[in-house]
Amino acid sequence: MKPFEDCVTGIVGLGLMGGAIAMALRRIPEEAGRGGLVLACDIDGGTIDAALKAKLIDEGFTDAGAMLGRCDLLFLCLNPGTLLRFMNKWMTAFKSGALITDIAGIKGSIAETMEGTLREDLDFIPGHPMAGSEKGGFENAGSCNFTGRNYILTPLRRNKPEHLEFLRDLIRRMGFGRIVETTAEEHDRKIAFTSQLCHVIAAALIDCEADTAITRFGGGSFEDLTRIAMLNVPMWTELFLENRRELLRRIEQFEGSLGMLKGLIAGGEEGRLRKTLQAVRQRRSSMT
Amino acid sequence: MKPFEDCVTGIVGLGLMGGAIAMALRRIPEEAGRGGLVLACDIDGGTIDAALKAKLIDEGFTDAGAMLGRCDLLFLCLNPGTLLRFMNKWMTAFKSGALITDIAGIKGSIAETMEGTLREDLDFIPGHPMAGSEKGGFENAGSCNFTGRNYILTPLRRNKPEHLEFLRDLIRRMGFGRIVETTAEEHDRKIAFTSQLCHVIAAALIDCEADTAITRFGGGSFEDLTRIAMLNVPMWTELFLENRRELLRRIEQFEGSLGMLKGLIAGGEEGRLRKTLQAVRQRRSSMT
Repeated sequence: MKPFEDCVTGIVGLGLMGGAIAMALRRIPEEAGRGGLVLACDIDGGTIDAALKAKLIDEGFTDAGAMLGRCDLLFLCLNPGTLLRFMNKWMTAFKSGALITDIAGIKGSIAETMEGTLREDLDFIPGHPMAGSEKGGFENAGSCNFTGRNYILTPLRRNKPEHLEFLRDLIRRMGFGRIVETTAEEHDRKIAFTSQLCHVIAAALIDCEADTAITRFGGGSFEDLTRIAMLNVPMWTELFLENRRELLRRIEQFEGSLGMLKGLIAGGEEGRLRKTLQAVRQRRSSMT
Repeated sequence: MKPFEDCVTGIVGLGLMGGAIAMALRRIPEEAGRGGLVLACDIDGGTIDAALKAKLIDEGFTDAGAMLGRCDLLFLCLNPGTLLRFMNKWMTAFKSGALITDIAGIKGSIAETMEGTLREDLDFIPGHPMAGSEKGGFENAGSCNFTGRNYILTPLRRNKPEHLEFLRDLIRRMGFGRIVETTAEEHDRKIAFTSQLCHVIAAALIDCEADTAITRFGGGSFEDLTRIAMLNVPMWTELFLENRRELLRRIEQFEGSLGMLKGLIAGGEEGRLRKTLQAVRQRRSSMT
């Protein structure tokens, strides 16, 4: 695979993450003295205009068909269901030899579909940049900070080692701190906990308090726990339902722990409560 | 009451919050060209030495008896149970006319005890600065930022208006953004939600995942929701148990909302899930 600087890169979908990736790619040129050519398509013409005006992309399209055949590298920044429909619709339009990657928050169905249906002359490395923002949309792309964050890859058996090496290198140059490579299954199991369960909890916390002036009594904890309740509704609905088996298992585990703590509090079991909180404190402190 | 600059102020307990208050008081002098005299006592001589060396206090003591009789203003920075024992032990030692305030995270028992037992010539205004840090102790006092934060006061019927005015003014000069005045009962009801429930949830999240390498899959949400799980164990044990009736009520409300979301996910009820998340998003967005 040729260097990024010589690639035509296409971003499909200029939402929060597509926009943030465009920004990160624009910051890359320092070494070669220039970046690669970056194209983007989005169904919203206004977003394309804004991205062109901000010089985040070199060319923009509202029709993917006008762009896909030129791209050596593609970032598909779409919700999972839209992504699968997009791949199905445009499978014949990609440039031969292209490397495609995505950013969707679940990987099982995508990995499975791509193993089965991807054209022989293409490569697809499923990815998940672990950096978001409760503020959605292209206009908030700047609030999405990649520096030092995790980026998960769930390679397919068919992925070419040189493509993996290319993508790892590009991810590091975009500022990410840690690249985790695992299976789609493990990704979905872990993400059900670190991401989806946390969003369900934040939503439940807001659901159970109707008083919006409650923040007069806030000291930071409530604000931190519920910031993500300002969620991208269509995307999270899709993620929750698509990964529902793992998510339900995690919700039940959490309910078990919550019920245990509730029991200690209700029973006034000071010694056991103290011991449990001490163990929690130690475990969380050892998480880096 | 004379101006703060002419008061002898005493801080009882130089932990995280006592230390942070000492720092905030030290930053006040700009207007009068000088601050007031700040004394502090702590059972740990090493902490007193460190505070003196950092010039955060003018004089330090390990015996409260050597300090209380000199103080016009007192910040009692103790856990709730310790605070009540302290007041009982030292009631005769305070300077006549002194204004006393505290920082404890529950107010019902303190307000009740003070209404009933405080010396006639003293005044006690229960307070709760809503600014903490998961890093405890005097050495982390600098991580406690007061700027723009909430400060709750739960005045007693007996409080003198001039004392309330004095304290409000001092709180503003310490950098706090909003002073909320309410009853001890309302404080304890609201705080059970914004603070204690959030800590129980964070603890439960950590309790239900033994893998400390889970943060390889973290994207910020998990980290934000569980930072407060590194809690001050004795203090939170006390707060949870002391406010247990309200806290249990809040845990049950939260369990109800969580169960409702779980049901929608389990049933694959896309439309209702979307509608619920949309309402959550709107409610959280309207919280300021």
